[in-house]
Amino acid sequence: MSRRVLRVGMVGGSDGFIGGVHRHAMALDGLYSIVAGVFSRDAAKSQTFGANLGIAADRLYLSYEAMAEAESKLPETERMEVAVIVTPTPAHAAACKAFIARGFAVVCDKPLATDVVEADAVLEAIYSKPSVNFMLIHNYSGYPMVKQAKSMVASGKIGDVKKVIAEYEQGWLCEDAQLSTTKSISSLADVGTHALQLLQYVTGLGVDEVCADVGTMVGGARSPDDANVLLRLTDGRRGVLIASQASAGQGNGLRLKVYGSKGGLVWEQESPERLQYLPIGSPAQVLVRGGHGLSEVAQHASRIPGGHPEGFLEAFANLYKAFYNQCCTGGDDSTADFPKASDGRNGLAFIAACMKSAEEARWVSVERLDPSAKRQRTN
Amino acid sequence: MSRRVLRVGMVGGSDGFIGGVHRHAMALDGLYSIVAGVFSRDAAKSQTFGANLGIAADRLYLSYEAMAEAESKLPETERMEVAVIVTPTPAHAAACKAFIARGFAVVCDKPLATDVVEADAVLEAIYSKPSVNFMLIHNYSGYPMVKQAKSMVASGKIGDVKKVIAEYEQGWLCEDAQLSTTKSISSLADVGTHALQLLQYVTGLGVDEVCADVGTMVGGARSPDDANVLLRLTDGRRGVLIASQASAGQGNGLRLKVYGSKGGLVWEQESPERLQYLPIGSPAQVLVRGGHGLSEVAQHASRIPGGHPEGFLEAFANLYKAFYNQCCTGGDDSTADFPKASDGRNGLAFIAACMKSAEEARWVSVERLDPSAKRQRTN
Amino acid sequence: MSRRVLRVGMVGGSDGFIGGVHRHAMALDGLYSIVAGVFSRDAAKSQTFGANLGIAADRLYLSYEAMAEAESKLPETERMEVAVIVTPTPAHAAACKAFIARGFAVVCDKPLATDVVEADAVLEAIYSKPSVNFMLIHNYSGYPMVKQAKSMVASGKIGDVKKVIAEYEQGWLCEDAQLSTTKSISSLADVGTHALQLLQYVTGLGVDEVCADVGTMVGGARSPDDANVLLRLTDGRRGVLIASQASAGQGNGLRLKVYGSKGGLVWEQESPERLQYLPIGSPAQVLVRGGHGLSEVAQHASRIPGGHPEGFLEAFANLYKAFYNQCCTGGDDSTADFPKASDGRNGLAFIAACMKSAEEARWVSVERLDPSAKRQRTN
Amino acid sequence: MSRRVLRVGMVGGSDGFIGGVHRHAMALDGLYSIVAGVFSRDAAKSQTFGANLGIAADRLYLSYEAMAEAESKLPETERMEVAVIVTPTPAHAAACKAFIARGFAVVCDKPLATDVVEADAVLEAIYSKPSVNFMLIHNYSGYPMVKQAKSMVASGKIGDVKKVIAEYEQGWLCEDAQLSTTKSISSLADVGTHALQLLQYVTGLGVDEVCADVGTMVGGARSPDDANVLLRLTDGRRGVLIASQASAGQGNGLRLKVYGSKGGLVWEQESPERLQYLPIGSPAQVLVRGGHGLSEVAQHASRIPGGHPEGFLEAFANLYKAFYNQCCTGGDDSTADFPKASDGRNGLAFIAACMKSAEEARWVSVERLDPSAKRQRTN
Repeated sequence: MSRRVLRVGMVGGSDGFIGGVHRHAMALDGLYSIVAGVFSRDAAKSQTFGANLGIAADRLYLSYEAMAEAESKLPETERMEVAVIVTPTPAHAAACKAFIARGFAVVCDKPLATDVVEADAVLEAIYSKPSVNFMLIHNYSGYPMVKQAKSMVASGKIGDVKKVIAEYEQGWLCEDAQLSTTKSISSLADVGTHALQLLQYVTGLGVDEVCADVGTMVGGARSPDDANVLLRLTDGRRGVLIASQASAGQGNGLRLKVYGSKGGLVWEQESPERLQYLPIGSPAQVLVRGGHGLSEVAQHASRIPGGHPEGFLEAFANLYKAFYNQCCTGGDDSTADFPKASDGRNGLAFIAACMKSAEEARWVSVERLDPSAKRQRTN
Repeated sequence: MSRRVLRVGMVGGSDGFIGGVHRHAMALDGLYSIVAGVFSRDAAKSQTFGANLGIAADRLYLSYEAMAEAESKLPETERMEVAVIVTPTPAHAAACKAFIARGFAVVCDKPLATDVVEADAVLEAIYSKPSVNFMLIHNYSGYPMVKQAKSMVASGKIGDVKKVIAEYEQGWLCEDAQLSTTKSISSLADVGTHALQLLQYVTGLGVDEVCADVGTMVGGARSPDDANVLLRLTDGRRGVLIASQASAGQGNGLRLKVYGSKGGLVWEQESPERLQYLPIGSPAQVLVRGGHGLSEVAQHASRIPGGHPEGFLEAFANLYKAFYNQCCTGGDDSTADFPKASDGRNGLAFIAACMKSAEEARWVSVERLDPSAKRQRTN
Repeated sequence: MSRRVLRVGMVGGSDGFIGGVHRHAMALDGLYSIVAGVFSRDAAKSQTFGANLGIAADRLYLSYEAMAEAESKLPETERMEVAVIVTPTPAHAAACKAFIARGFAVVCDKPLATDVVEADAVLEAIYSKPSVNFMLIHNYSGYPMVKQAKSMVASGKIGDVKKVIAEYEQGWLCEDAQLSTTKSISSLADVGTHALQLLQYVTGLGVDEVCADVGTMVGGARSPDDANVLLRLTDGRRGVLIASQASAGQGNGLRLKVYGSKGGLVWEQESPERLQYLPIGSPAQVLVRGGHGLSEVAQHASRIPGGHPEGFLEAFANLYKAFYNQCCTGGDDSTADFPKASDGRNGLAFIAACMKSAEEARWVSVERLDPSAKRQRTN
Repeated sequence: MSRRVLRVGMVGGSDGFIGGVHRHAMALDGLYSIVAGVFSRDAAKSQTFGANLGIAADRLYLSYEAMAEAESKLPETERMEVAVIVTPTPAHAAACKAFIARGFAVVCDKPLATDVVEADAVLEAIYSKPSVNFMLIHNYSGYPMVKQAKSMVASGKIGDVKKVIAEYEQGWLCEDAQLSTTKSISSLADVGTHALQLLQYVTGLGVDEVCADVGTMVGGARSPDDANVLLRLTDGRRGVLIASQASAGQGNGLRLKVYGSKGGLVWEQESPERLQYLPIGSPAQVLVRGGHGLSEVAQHASRIPGGHPEGFLEAFANLYKAFYNQCCTGGDDSTADFPKASDGRNGLAFIAACMKSAEEARWVSVERLDPSAKRQRTN
């Protein structure tokens, strides 16, 4: 019997680079096929774009609402199964809700919504449809060596976590005068939430309080492009999070350092295949994807032998693979290894707390999701 | 109009990791679709494997001869267009010829054949079918920063090339006792030809003479696992090529250093996104994929922004993309940017010269392809 | 005529490693000779230690007061000229004042004193003896590539400085249970002031306000071993300073990142010979000691050709060389390239502000030295 | 009792950088004092230079013969004890013999002599004066992490050594047109012998046969600036040695890779504080000076804590320290940890074999020192 391929309807993704990233990531393992879409609000553009992807004309829609409606009426063996939402952020929440309401699985690019209120509405929608699978994209947790770091923390290799430093430094905003004036999303949303999710994914810790300095470095930027945040993590542990898009000359400099009572871990996204393990009292080790000493999870998140570099798209595709398994097995997504809507909601609460902290120049509590609100779902 | 997708018939690829690499690489850009195959000599295994890939039962064949024959009789709009051959080496030449003879385009994994005589027969077959497109896989030349290195050499950035060092060090043979006794292909064939092709691709130079020391480091190895070769390149330039699969602890350590009259270039496969440029009299530069100062060719070989690592599969897919363009445009493949059968033939001549040199403990000429034999083709 | 050698009287330095560092650094260039000393409060120990250094018995003293007194009565051509003070911190201020009062030049290890009040008293002593030369040891500013970074900032290579990140992470406290319980100085004093001085030296900026999170990671530590500080620098620029001695597995991880409107600079103490220069719009450059593109100051701070690594002791010796020149030429020390007492005083004010900020959980102003208090001196 | 300081008479060292390196290295630990010298053949220059070093006028000589003669007649407690010879190579052998004959200890910079015949004469002189201590400078074996590598090979950490790759790539000859035309010593002598000694020091293996390609890359070079050599080491092991001074853009790129049956070791001179240890079947380790897992020898070759970089001068000074211990204890120098005259002699035999091999395009045996000729000495 042939392997099942999930049928995708895509919303957005004709502009920018992220739509292409999703398509490459879906294509890589042959687990998804795009069968429907509304790729732009510009109907003609969407039409041309979809046709070029080989999508039948009658499944290129004028709006996501139309797509949700029409597809839900197609025969079960034909209609789209997963909505992949890669529009600009303001449309995320409404689009998510439209597809959830009709029982479609949803993959939504980060951030989940524009603010916590919107995010909570998405969560409510998810809670009210227990059969719906939902994935929020925070792709950095898809890297095998990030999963290895998580395994090592969980198994006590570095003892009790004492401190975490997450830095996400980009410099492109310095280079692109036009973007810097039109871009309306802050570095906290654009990269800070990635750093936050990475930190939480690896350590299992949450952020309780923040003390943030948020500002603008590039002259014309419409929103804060630089944020430096002191963190108080679960049980009083300390942390630092730096999120900047105006760090001249930096590429995509996401780095995580975790220090525990028995050792440290250092991972850098631009050399994603390596994880430095710094055990107290012994020489440093360099763990590599496909190499020795890896956890089962890290081993499974790998496609080709070590030394043959995997990268960003492969990590991204790991998310899609985990979501595919979730959709096809119908398992409990509380243990499924991909980011959830709750991660997105907490990211927005983190941003809100940082902005308030910066404005009031004091420590501010992060209003994390009340776990009792989760019912049977972790989304 | 929808983008054309090339229909592929695959030969081999159910064992080992290289079949999967080809499938991932073909899938990544959505330009190829596997519609037929014979994945194993074991019919049942091939059947199951093909079904799992979603291939129709009536296009899963018992032999490549049967596939070539049957597919050639299908309607033009339905039959396979490209044969992808990833069998063990001994079957390469015959399989290539079977598909070339029927006018199919062919992608053959490296090495082209078991020896120069076989390789020449494949070349003859290609010359006699001028309309057939043929790609030999030497995937390292698919990396954007390798293409950047080639551009910089070509444009004179490092002046006249004086010396080249190509090292390819793997260590896995030390780790796998069983493989080391069953493996019957030498490090020269397995990795040495990659180093050679990389060197020739970047510099445009050929190897005229070799002086080689070829030996066995791991006890049970059935064929030489270590080769160290002094090179005399075009017009007397010097070079060194090291090809080992018993370099304990090395992963996939392919490195290239090119020294010219105006500067040097250093590239390492395990950090493929960076190219060190060492201009005489100025600070060293680190060029990165997606960054500044890149040639058009290097820019085009990139899918996502710099800092978001691309890797081995993306480089591999770059070959498939170039071959796709060649197949769809029907252009002259003399300029198409993918490796040719002639590269494979020269690789085998290089191996033969190294083995002879090692045996006779002297410098030996490499019998490179006579360019006049090429007629209108460069394959 | 023979090169002049400065005669040194050393105070402290028989325990720990820092005394040896001073002696190696003084010895390296042959500009200093230790002729007197009180190496320990334990007279016998001091005697033995001094004798082993080849110091005459009658110039091994029982206390620094005795040494200052006795040496000041020796003939001018014989008596010590420079007091090098490497005692535990509590004795610094008093020892400095004893030697300053008698007109000796003074080199004092960092920190200058235990608090700002003590430090101000040392500054007063210096101001009242305009002929006395004084150097505070902050050795990291002795590295050639740190001087290069300073030159590049000063000459506008990275434009207007927008943000600075200074990290100083050590892990040894995790490894040494005994030290962690006896050590009574905080990571802010021990490493934080180095990071601060480095930041100020390179950028020329001062720290106006801090918001600090100061805590203890290692169980038995007697004083805070971890500090994370948000900085407000001159004219509102932003910065982050991290100073930890419990970052498991880190060696001596001092790193500086400076981002400006035209580019960035990155320097790491454990690879001190390299400076990354990240110009906006061009490939990154790696400047190396002894290499191309260096400022005159950076060139002069080098002893041997590039590629032959210089390190910590050479950087340390650069301070001693600059101080030697100052002492021998009698120039205005306002421009002399070594750290001053004022740097030490500002470091203590920084610590005080951080401790207050941490305690009160708010931003606190750093009470920097009033420049009008300096009179003709910058010490 | 005061620590003994060895009295040095220096021959040469007013030009170039190597004289200064020796003086810094001698000064660093305070174990040597230069009391006499002939710093140049130009008497006035030598006089000025020596005076500037603080040497008494009556101990500045016109020739090394005069110095050897005059100093030998001074009272034992006053006369020089060690001759440090840093002249151009042609004077090495004669100068060595002059001092050996009069019973002075000798430190001679590498290479020992201009050829094997001269070197054998020096060895004969040494053998005939069993009380004389002799050190040849090959400073790279002074690095702590090189000593660590040697310890690990000796203790079987990487099993039986199978292959060694020693690369020494410099680029300065490309940059200095004048030097390239006046320089009369080949890259084999200048850097190749360092690579050879490093290889032999770490592995304990000798080179039995060579097959070399020796040539000139920079136009005006008077002697071969590039050599690539296949090695046959003790018991048939394989190796490669690359020695070039025209590798555009390289600094002082000495690297050693040793592969054994249980693992590999990689060391790079430009990052001398780290040693990569690649055990088969386990993650790679990064051993660092002053860190964990080091042999006693490596620990003792260190002055300051790990993370505070030591470099070239410290490694150089380690040789001088070992020689000091040898001179002061009068022990058997067969076990003393510094390079011997025999290393120099074997280096010259290696060069001779390489030149012959290159000329005759064949493998050539290296005429290594007959151990039976050594009598009681290893020098």
